[in-house]
Amino acid sequence: MAVYTDVAADELADFLSWYDLGALLSYKGIAEGVENSNFLLHTSNGSFILTLYEKRVERDDLPFFLGLMTHLASHGINCPQPVANRRGQALGVLAGRPAAIITFLEGIWPRKPNAVHCAGIGEVLAKMHLAGAGFTMRRANALSVSGWRPLFDVAASRADEVQHGLSAFLSAELDYLEGGVWPRHLPQGVIHADLFPDNAFFLGDRLSGVIDFTFACDDMLAYDVAICLNAWCFEPDHSFNVTKARAFLSAYARERRLSDAEQDALPLLARGAAIRFLLTRLVDWLNVPPGALVRPKDPLEYVRKLRFHQSVASVRDYGLSDQGLVA
Amino acid sequence: MAVYTDVAADELADFLSWYDLGALLSYKGIAEGVENSNFLLHTSNGSFILTLYEKRVERDDLPFFLGLMTHLASHGINCPQPVANRRGQALGVLAGRPAAIITFLEGIWPRKPNAVHCAGIGEVLAKMHLAGAGFTMRRANALSVSGWRPLFDVAASRADEVQHGLSAFLSAELDYLEGGVWPRHLPQGVIHADLFPDNAFFLGDRLSGVIDFTFACDDMLAYDVAICLNAWCFEPDHSFNVTKARAFLSAYARERRLSDAEQDALPLLARGAAIRFLLTRLVDWLNVPPGALVRPKDPLEYVRKLRFHQSVASVRDYGLSDQGLVA
Repeated sequence: MAVYTDVAADELADFLSWYDLGALLSYKGIAEGVENSNFLLHTSNGSFILTLYEKRVERDDLPFFLGLMTHLASHGINCPQPVANRRGQALGVLAGRPAAIITFLEGIWPRKPNAVHCAGIGEVLAKMHLAGAGFTMRRANALSVSGWRPLFDVAASRADEVQHGLSAFLSAELDYLEGGVWPRHLPQGVIHADLFPDNAFFLGDRLSGVIDFTFACDDMLAYDVAICLNAWCFEPDHSFNVTKARAFLSAYARERRLSDAEQDALPLLARGAAIRFLLTRLVDWLNVPPGALVRPKDPLEYVRKLRFHQSVASVRDYGLSDQGLVA
Repeated sequence: MAVYTDVAADELADFLSWYDLGALLSYKGIAEGVENSNFLLHTSNGSFILTLYEKRVERDDLPFFLGLMTHLASHGINCPQPVANRRGQALGVLAGRPAAIITFLEGIWPRKPNAVHCAGIGEVLAKMHLAGAGFTMRRANALSVSGWRPLFDVAASRADEVQHGLSAFLSAELDYLEGGVWPRHLPQGVIHADLFPDNAFFLGDRLSGVIDFTFACDDMLAYDVAICLNAWCFEPDHSFNVTKARAFLSAYARERRLSDAEQDALPLLARGAAIRFLLTRLVDWLNVPPGALVRPKDPLEYVRKLRFHQSVASVRDYGLSDQGLVA
């Protein structure tokens, strides 16, 4: 939630003069997106989002993110579409930063997701995984298993300030996940990798779109499923809601069947997804300036989630019946 | 620039169910307004602003602000119009805070105001002063001369941390302004009291609207003119731009003549306006938590402006010719 960079009206007018978007009527910095500065534009042609990519996003990755949105949108996924300027370019420079304009999606992200929302997420996640098959650009997942130890090393000496024993807990979990158990042969593809409730819009109970592809990358498709289990299927008190998980997994499986190997790996992948968000939140938590007005997200939420996944014996604990994915 | 309070979709839906605004399509927290949380709503009827009033705004003052916008809009001023719900109420409660919906004004606030913008401000300020004449509600200006000493007392002991000698400089200026020189018999009325560039929207060079009436109050009309001289007529290097001031004052005078007494008082009122913003910025500056992500505005900008006004011999130094207001 941040606008890091303001944009002068004349600079923006210069930038927009390369586009066929009509007359600019207004632009407002919006409190969405942690990594970038986002503005909601009203023009005589409609509403658009202008994003300025701040330094935490690699410039070399931007063509991947923009290309992916264009690809998915052209394959029936409701996601923002990059708008090309009259030179055919979707990426420009504004206020000294890489900048892009994408179409605006109406919709509301669910602050209190219910099982219907979770089913919508399962369906769109599977459809994205299928639609991504034809996308030819590649981007490695910098936050997969090999990326966790460096985050831990940054945070280890101070982790116990957040919770007594946290450093030893993380160290043991990393030792386990790095010890050869992490799957290597599951189906790969393009994953969203950050499909949290604030990146999914609904109109009523109907999913109207998916946004924010700045963590998208190539990885195991089932890892994206595991991320969503963490992001969508726990209650505010961090208890696991098996009804939501069943709705999510069943809807996913109706579009794309999870193989037996993927189902078997799900508890492990969910542990990995939990420690990935735990570690990035922990690093952010320890590095926030004292008294900052923007509070980082609580890493301890993911300690609770990780402990839950450690206790899971099989994919059935995520709410699946013995008959398989469709309950 | 802040969204202090998030709003859950179901709470917002409940709130909106009392309004005839059509279906809610999206809402985004926007980075405008320092005192309140503001959301841009898209509904099937158009765009609206939802404001949650945070604790720095007195609840008892809200009917004044909302009533004033309704009054001014009905008298030809382009400003947001409060939207009444089906009970006829413009003020409700959302997320535990007083909340109101106002119409959305298209337009862009000028990051680099030019003389044409300043002329637009002069014209609309005078028109607001004339239109305010029939408004019957009253609100005292808590930040006029009697309000400055308490702010100084809060900041005095640490003012020299910001600039060596600042405390003595402020003390001397306050002694002067409180010593019987502050005007008592100039024309009074409703003033905006915070008409800075970010509260004025333009489409091209044409002023499209004035927003944010949360400092509006009753005071000398010429004091509002003095505030705008401070807010619009200095360059980024804090030098005074006499061309902009002439454009502003001439445009004002074409709509509402400034009396000789008002003209004579203008340098003094400008000193008062400068110290008013200097003091509130100084208090905010000294009270910001270390490392906060939202930087308060620099109080020293107003030290430079105050010194300029101290050097002004007469209203002619603001760019007026000997022939009077219209140069």
